[in-house]
Amino acid sequence: MREVAIIGVGMNKWGEVWEKSLRDMYVEAAVASIKDAGVDHIDGMYVGSMTPGLFVGQEHLGSLLADYLGMKGLPCTRVESACASGGVALKSAVLEVASGHSNIVIAGGVEKMTDCSGDDATYALATAADQEYEVFHGATFPGLYGMMARRHMHEYGTTREQLAHVAVKNHKNGSKNPNAQYPFEVTLEGVMTSVMVADPMRILDCSPITDGAACVVVADLETARKICKKPIVKIIGFGHSTDSIALHNRASLTKLDATIAAGEKAYKMAGKKPTDIHVAEVHDCFTIAEIIVIEDLGFFPKGKGGTGAESGATHIGGKIPVNTSGGLKSKGHPVGATGIAQAIEITHQLRGEAGARQVKGARVGLTQNMGGSGGSTVVHIMEVA
Amino acid sequence: MREVAIIGVGMNKWGEVWEKSLRDMYVEAAVASIKDAGVDHIDGMYVGSMTPGLFVGQEHLGSLLADYLGMKGLPCTRVESACASGGVALKSAVLEVASGHSNIVIAGGVEKMTDCSGDDATYALATAADQEYEVFHGATFPGLYGMMARRHMHEYGTTREQLAHVAVKNHKNGSKNPNAQYPFEVTLEGVMTSVMVADPMRILDCSPITDGAACVVVADLETARKICKKPIVKIIGFGHSTDSIALHNRASLTKLDATIAAGEKAYKMAGKKPTDIHVAEVHDCFTIAEIIVIEDLGFFPKGKGGTGAESGATHIGGKIPVNTSGGLKSKGHPVGATGIAQAIEITHQLRGEAGARQVKGARVGLTQNMGGSGGSTVVHIMEVA
Repeated sequence: MREVAIIGVGMNKWGEVWEKSLRDMYVEAAVASIKDAGVDHIDGMYVGSMTPGLFVGQEHLGSLLADYLGMKGLPCTRVESACASGGVALKSAVLEVASGHSNIVIAGGVEKMTDCSGDDATYALATAADQEYEVFHGATFPGLYGMMARRHMHEYGTTREQLAHVAVKNHKNGSKNPNAQYPFEVTLEGVMTSVMVADPMRILDCSPITDGAACVVVADLETARKICKKPIVKIIGFGHSTDSIALHNRASLTKLDATIAAGEKAYKMAGKKPTDIHVAEVHDCFTIAEIIVIEDLGFFPKGKGGTGAESGATHIGGKIPVNTSGGLKSKGHPVGATGIAQAIEITHQLRGEAGARQVKGARVGLTQNMGGSGGSTVVHIMEVA
Repeated sequence: MREVAIIGVGMNKWGEVWEKSLRDMYVEAAVASIKDAGVDHIDGMYVGSMTPGLFVGQEHLGSLLADYLGMKGLPCTRVESACASGGVALKSAVLEVASGHSNIVIAGGVEKMTDCSGDDATYALATAADQEYEVFHGATFPGLYGMMARRHMHEYGTTREQLAHVAVKNHKNGSKNPNAQYPFEVTLEGVMTSVMVADPMRILDCSPITDGAACVVVADLETARKICKKPIVKIIGFGHSTDSIALHNRASLTKLDATIAAGEKAYKMAGKKPTDIHVAEVHDCFTIAEIIVIEDLGFFPKGKGGTGAESGATHIGGKIPVNTSGGLKSKGHPVGATGIAQAIEITHQLRGEAGARQVKGARVGLTQNMGGSGGSTVVHIMEVA
């Protein structure tokens, strides 16, 4: 397999983007990534999107977006793994370049969620759960993650305050991200008294409904070296794993087997261990998710994610800065685009261009993108070449 | 890139499968393909499915199907390109094996369409067209292909009888396929007097709404040679291209640029020309589609697809047998599974195990799988090793 690097990144300002359609947002992100890369052609494209059929009545996104990008004819495939659709798009682009079939490929992601009414968005998202055993009985994602949180509190003594610390930290980071949907800070008290969604998940424990797109351009290392004027960000490892999408089919509610396995594969391929990672973007769709994930990626021992969050270790300047972009919580969560935006933040960090969010001396970064309640996970590890 | 071969195939009996859910059908097809291949493990899986979110309220298929296949943890990605979703699943699996990342990968496809009410199925399928410019104004696929047919008749003198000849031939072939949804013959008069759907497309010009799944196992050539007891079917070329999904954005209604480009790429990669192909499975979602496609793949000159169909040249025993399986028309068209079932038929033909449908001496075969009204196309060329 050939070595592959990220050579360009681009995204739009995320939020409730009433004035632009899905295709407009995607083209904006893709053009920005092409401009950032400085390339004059593209060989292929993968678009991660969870459920544009339910959100905006549009499938066949690969062809549509190639066309609106002015690249009619470009081989382009939409990929989906619920909220990990961006992660599988990046993995697919990496494999196509690694195989030697293509040299320069866009990995993008997009979701237009606010054109759906409130109830419908909850239903559309619920299709990432098991329709026949979970959704049919009324389960929604705040409810599923609420159960995981309650069990984590029961088993490990994780506190309500510790959950809130995740939201406070991510909003603090997001307040420095001009592309974030909610670029403002929140207080511990504010989170803990916000409206209840599914006990113990309050509204400020939940990532929002977002319109957004994100793209990265990947290339083989030889091409990257010829083209890149900015530091080259090599993808040195990746891992992809799955689990039962239905929570009741798992042995534990407080560990995520797909994240553990994907992390192990990525660490092994990269020749790195958790302590080698300088900055990480993880899938904080709910505050409890970040706590479980930072345990399962090996940043903290099992059961200690809550105290880790409370200690400040995950802040910029801490032992392992997590979600410097603001995470899904503050930056927003247009589900198909999230995994790509994680790769964008790590690229900015490793290039040293993250501004007020910069982690000093960051040379190795990790992304963890997760579908549903953990039914799929894709981990990538990047390093400055 | 490593050479890749198909080493196992499996599908369920297609039709209105009321007694099985999407996951049941897929597991049946996947287990059959694993058994046919004789492998004891799988490294990865791609599932082509167009819109399970709209048809059965279920996204996140990759993880769900890996789990129900008893392979929790297997890296599995759903891919989509409307009705060419199966084709992109096969291409994705080939690239993963070609890259060296995996040795044995399943490319599958599935769609459960009859759980949707009639109106909803038409809407779900319409999401392969341009929602903002076609669907919004009431366009449906019979209507779009009806316009293409009228224009082909106008430009080239293609007749109503010639369209019907496609249906008659495909049903004749399908009558010999035990997995076909409609394994019966139809007459020229029967097609031409069947109920009108969208002038000039009558109900027997249209492929049906189908429940079905199909899987193939692909492996690198070295692994294939170790494992295979049956003839090895090498994938010697593939091509993938896109076009505007909206018909009004194209220069011509009577040629399919994505099919032309995908065909050219596949022929070039395989080192073959149209006259080298012994048997082809093409995307006859409507009778007019087969006529245009056999022109655009170079089997007949532009404008001569109708006379080609009428002449018997596309029959078993003719110059270029097309859709020996019965095609989408008789075998059925569970959209995400169609591209994979095409590869299954070509595998059977090249192995010499197609029974009453066997094309004598077939050693080189081609599949052409198409999304929407031609907005995407994937072509594969296979040869007996």
